[in-house]
Amino acid sequence: MHSLVVLFFLSSIVTAQPPDSAKLRSYQDILQRMMKAGMESYAAHHMLTELCTTIGPRLSGSANAEKGVQWAKRKMEELGFDRVWLEPVMVPHWVRGPVEEASIVASTSGKNIPLTVCALGGSIATPREGITAEVVEVRSFEELRALGDKSKGKIVFFNRPMERERFSTGEAYGRAVNQRGQGAMEAAKVGGVAALIRSMTTRLDDVPHTGMMVYSDTIPKVPTAAVSTVGADLLSEMLKKNPDLRLRLRLSCETLPDVESANVIGEIVGSERPDEVIVVGGHFDSWDKGQGAHDDGAGVMQSVEVLRLMKAIGLQPKRTIRAVLFMNEENGARGGRVYATKERPGVTHIAAIESDAGGFTPLGFGVTADSETFSSIARWSPVLDAIDAGRITRGGGGVDVGPLREQGAITIGLRVTGQRYFDYHHSDSDTIDKVNERELELGAIAMAMLSYILSEENITPPVSHGPTH
Amino acid sequence: MHSLVVLFFLSSIVTAQPPDSAKLRSYQDILQRMMKAGMESYAAHHMLTELCTTIGPRLSGSANAEKGVQWAKRKMEELGFDRVWLEPVMVPHWVRGPVEEASIVASTSGKNIPLTVCALGGSIATPREGITAEVVEVRSFEELRALGDKSKGKIVFFNRPMERERFSTGEAYGRAVNQRGQGAMEAAKVGGVAALIRSMTTRLDDVPHTGMMVYSDTIPKVPTAAVSTVGADLLSEMLKKNPDLRLRLRLSCETLPDVESANVIGEIVGSERPDEVIVVGGHFDSWDKGQGAHDDGAGVMQSVEVLRLMKAIGLQPKRTIRAVLFMNEENGARGGRVYATKERPGVTHIAAIESDAGGFTPLGFGVTADSETFSSIARWSPVLDAIDAGRITRGGGGVDVGPLREQGAITIGLRVTGQRYFDYHHSDSDTIDKVNERELELGAIAMAMLSYILSEENITPPVSHGPTH
Repeated sequence: MHSLVVLFFLSSIVTAQPPDSAKLRSYQDILQRMMKAGMESYAAHHMLTELCTTIGPRLSGSANAEKGVQWAKRKMEELGFDRVWLEPVMVPHWVRGPVEEASIVASTSGKNIPLTVCALGGSIATPREGITAEVVEVRSFEELRALGDKSKGKIVFFNRPMERERFSTGEAYGRAVNQRGQGAMEAAKVGGVAALIRSMTTRLDDVPHTGMMVYSDTIPKVPTAAVSTVGADLLSEMLKKNPDLRLRLRLSCETLPDVESANVIGEIVGSERPDEVIVVGGHFDSWDKGQGAHDDGAGVMQSVEVLRLMKAIGLQPKRTIRAVLFMNEENGARGGRVYATKERPGVTHIAAIESDAGGFTPLGFGVTADSETFSSIARWSPVLDAIDAGRITRGGGGVDVGPLREQGAITIGLRVTGQRYFDYHHSDSDTIDKVNERELELGAIAMAMLSYILSEENITPPVSHGPTH
Repeated sequence: MHSLVVLFFLSSIVTAQPPDSAKLRSYQDILQRMMKAGMESYAAHHMLTELCTTIGPRLSGSANAEKGVQWAKRKMEELGFDRVWLEPVMVPHWVRGPVEEASIVASTSGKNIPLTVCALGGSIATPREGITAEVVEVRSFEELRALGDKSKGKIVFFNRPMERERFSTGEAYGRAVNQRGQGAMEAAKVGGVAALIRSMTTRLDDVPHTGMMVYSDTIPKVPTAAVSTVGADLLSEMLKKNPDLRLRLRLSCETLPDVESANVIGEIVGSERPDEVIVVGGHFDSWDKGQGAHDDGAGVMQSVEVLRLMKAIGLQPKRTIRAVLFMNEENGARGGRVYATKERPGVTHIAAIESDAGGFTPLGFGVTADSETFSSIARWSPVLDAIDAGRITRGGGGVDVGPLREQGAITIGLRVTGQRYFDYHHSDSDTIDKVNERELELGAIAMAMLSYILSEENITPPVSHGPTH
C-alpha cells in the first residue's frame, strides 16, 4: 500500500517547484465556479437517472445498448458540444436467455432447495433439461487439480471468498476473480460438467453477481454461473452434511453473431492546440443486471459533465477536451482498442482520464507517466485538496484508456472510496438509488479540473504520438 | 480549506522525526491484525443493527433511551471489558406527541394542501385547534427585521437553503442552522405566531429533519417545526402566486420534567498507567426520528468496537482505553459536561476521540492540541495511510469531549467523507440500511489504532489535569 503523503513529500522535495501562487489562486477560483455550476445542478446525477431509468442496463450488442448510444449522442448534441459523433465498434452479442436456475436436489421426497444464480457472461447454455450432478467444492485451481479424477462428471463449485480483511476491495477482487474468469476451463480440464462460482462480493446476501468468463478453443466448453454468497454458504454447509448431494443447473444463455455498435464521442475543440487531445471517459456498456449505475453509467455521465461544466462556466481550454463513452469494456474491451487504433492524422493524445471505479467520493487520481510528467501533475494537487481529491499517486488508468498508453499518452484513473463498489458490481443491486448526487458530481468536477490543468499547463509526455506517425 | 498534504509536509519538515521504522512496522502489523479481526466479523455493524432494530431511536428521557442504556451496559459486560458502569446524568424530557401537521389552507373550496413537517426538539405545542395564519417568507434574520411590523400575527417561514455548492456540508449546515436554532425567538420578537423552518439538508425530498431549537425567558415562546425541502419549495412557489395564503400548523409536543439517565462506560484498564485515560466515544442519545443509525449509533458502536478489537487480538495497552457512550448530546449536551466535571481523584484524561460525523469512510483525524503534541501524533499518519485514514489535520473533537479539553486533554474527532451525512441527519432516513459494514468498521479500526498509539507512545499534552487537581 502506498503512503500517499510520503509520495507527495518526496516528489515535492526532489523535483517539483511549488506552483506559482497567482496561477494556483486562479485554478482555485475556477474550481469554486465548477462547484457552483455542478452542485447547484447535480447535472451528472440527473443525466445518470435518465440513463438508468429510461434506458436501463446496456450489455454490448443489446437493443438497450443501441438505444442508449443514440440517447447519449442526442444528449451531447443538446448540450451544445462543438462536435459530437459515433465511431463504429463491432461487439460480441451474448444473451442471457429466460432460464437460469439452480437447486439442490432433494435426496428422497420433499422439495428441492433453490439457489439464486445467474449465468456468467459468455457462458454456453445447459441442455434444456439442465445438468444434474454431484458437486465438488474447491477454493483454488491447485486444490481442484490435486483432486485428480474425483471431479469427473461433477459440477465444480469454486467457493473462495473475496478476502474481507483487505482494505482494497479491488485487490480482494483481483485475488478471487480468476475463479469466475477461468473456472469453467479449469473445471472442464478435470472432466467437470459445469462450474458454479461464488459471487464476487464481500457482502453476504442473496444477489448473484455476473461478469466475464472465457473459454479456450482447446478445452471443452461447460456452462458456468455465479451463485449468491448466501447460496454459496448454504451449499457449502449442506455439502459438509451430505457430500453426495446433487445439484441441478439450468441456463438458456447463448452467443449470437457480432453486432455493430459504437463509441459515443463529444468534444470542446481547443482554442490554441486543437489537435492535442485530452480524453475523459468511462464505458457506456454495462452488464445486463441492475441498471449499470455505478458500473459505469457514473463514469460516462461524469465525462459528459466535464464538458458541460466547462461550457457552463465559460471555460475555453487551449487543448481539445474530448468525452469518450467507450463501448464493450465488460466483455471484450473492443471500444477502447478501436478508439486507440483508429487513424487520426495529425492528432496527438496527450492524456486520458478514466472513471470506472463507481460514482463514489473522489479521493484523487492515479497517474501512469514518467517521473517528471508525474511531478508536473502532482504539484497541482493543492487545487484538488479543496474538495479532498488531491491525492495524486503513481499508477492509474483503466481498461478503456489502456491502449492509448501504448501511443505515449498519460493514462489517469479517478480514485474514489472503494468499500461499497463490490456490493453492487455486476448485479441487480447496481441501480441509481445507490449513487449519491454530491459524490458523483464531485468526481466530475475533479476530472474537469484536472483535464483543464493538463490543457492549460501544457503538460506533455516525453513520447507522445498518434498511431499514424 | 486546509491543504492536508501541505500541513503534514510542514510539520514533518519543522518538527517531526520520521517514526522509528521497527516501531512503524510493529504498528502496521497491529493494524493488519485489527483489519482481520474487524473485517471478518463486521462486529460494529452487527451491534449497530441490534441497537437500531431492537431499541430504535433514543431521545433523551425516553423509555427507548433507558432501555438502550441497559442494553449497552449488558453488551459491554458480555464483551468482557475490565470494568463497565453507568454514571447518572439528569436529562431534559421533550416528547413529540401524536399530532404534527401543516397544510396550506384552500382559499375557497377544494382540499387543503398538506406539507410534511415535524416539530423541532424543544418546541411548545400549538393550541389544540392549531394555528392558522398568513405566512411571511424570509431567508435571514436581517430580512425578517427589515420587514418591521409586517410579520405580526403571521407564521414566519425561514427558507434559506443549505448551500449546495459548498464542499463541506458541515460548513453549509453551520451557515443555515441558526434558522432552526433561533428561528422561533426571532419570529416571536417581530410578533410572529409560529416559525416554520426549511429542513437542514442539501437533498430535495419530502422528509423533514428535526433538531434542537432554543427559547429565551425574555421572549414569548411560539411553536416551531421543520418542513421538508420539497414542502418548502412548494410553499415558496405558492406564496409567489398568492402572498395572502394561509397556513395551518398543529403540533402536540411538550416538555416534561427532567429524567435521570446515564452515560454508559466500559474500559480496558491500562497495564502500566491505569490512571491515564484515553476516551473513545460518541453519543448514545439520538433524535426520535429514524433509528439514530449514523447519528450517532455509529459512533457509540465504533467506540465499543475499539475495545472489542483490542481484546480480540490480545492487545494490552499501557494506559486505560475507555469507551464512553455519552447521553444527551442532541438536546442539552449534559452527558459530556457531567462526565468531564465528575471528581475522579488521581485520574488524568490524556486524550478523547469522538466519532460523531456518521459511519462513513474514515479519512483521518482532526486534532486539537499544542503544536508539539500535534506533531507527535501526526508523525504516525503513515500507519493509518494503509487504510487511507492518515490525514491528521489541526482542529478536532466533538460536543461530548469538548469539556475534557478544558482540563487539558487532547481532543480528537474522527474525520469521514461527509457528502451524505445530511441526507439522513435527524430524520426518518437515518436507518441502519444507510450504514455500510466496511466503512463503519474501518472507522472503528482507525480509532483503535490511534488510541493505542497515544497509549504506547506515551503522548501527553503539556498541561493535563483532572478536575480535582
